[in-house]
Amino acid sequence: MERVPVLKIGDILLVSIQVDMADQTALQLQEDLAERIVATGCHGVIIDITALDIVDSFIGRMLSSIASISKVLDAETVVVGMRPAVAITLVELGLSLNGIRTALNVERGIELIAAARGEDDDLDIDLTDAEPASA
Amino acid sequence: MERVPVLKIGDILLVSIQVDMADQTALQLQEDLAERIVATGCHGVIIDITALDIVDSFIGRMLSSIASISKVLDAETVVVGMRPAVAITLVELGLSLNGIRTALNVERGIELIAAARGEDDDLDIDLTDAEPASA
Repeated sequence: MERVPVLKIGDILLVSIQVDMADQTALQLQEDLAERIVATGCHGVIIDITALDIVDSFIGRMLSSIASISKVLDAETVVVGMRPAVAITLVELGLSLNGIRTALNVERGIELIAAARGEDDDLDIDLTDAEPASA
Repeated sequence: MERVPVLKIGDILLVSIQVDMADQTALQLQEDLAERIVATGCHGVIIDITALDIVDSFIGRMLSSIASISKVLDAETVVVGMRPAVAITLVELGLSLNGIRTALNVERGIELIAAARGEDDDLDIDLTDAEPASA
């Protein structure tokens, strides 16, 4: 079975999706990411989709799902490297990437996560954010 | 044709090899990396091979070749994420990764490159110094 590597860089986990995401691969990636977030205490997940020619509803759901899981584990998710054609197709298909932040490239993604964490620096404990949205 | 994405993070180019490296893919990766090194002025290349089950002589030559090309373009190459089984097979096959530095994971790779460059750089990637990425 294909398995997508999860790389840790500082406070961030980086995933570069290059293979076809079959059901099992997608589930495995969600599990791996959740385990690594807990094990490392990282506060950011960056998913690079430079290599993807297409983002269909399955990939879209997988990305949303990863973002939701990360969120309840206190990590921000940013999708980076989307090709222009992919963005156009997404809109044409009427797909919205629910709850997913995007950035142009990995560096902007790192900045976005840092900024998002900065906003959360006040120690307000908001339990409404802690409910699993859709696991 | 498969194309392996090259990600820029601070002063480093990161490549995560996950697909089968056919001749054309390998050549394309060498070209892409050389072009990105020149375009960005990066001084380090990290090649992650976590996803590889095997490193045969073809992959070995490709890695050596990338390291040599990077070297003449003033960039250090570090291969990270080698699995224990891959290391054992490499030695059993009598393959040596000529001129290739290795590190356990991406973070150690970054440290190794920083040390090689003679910089007192810690793991924090300072994005304020980063040039605008040309994606």
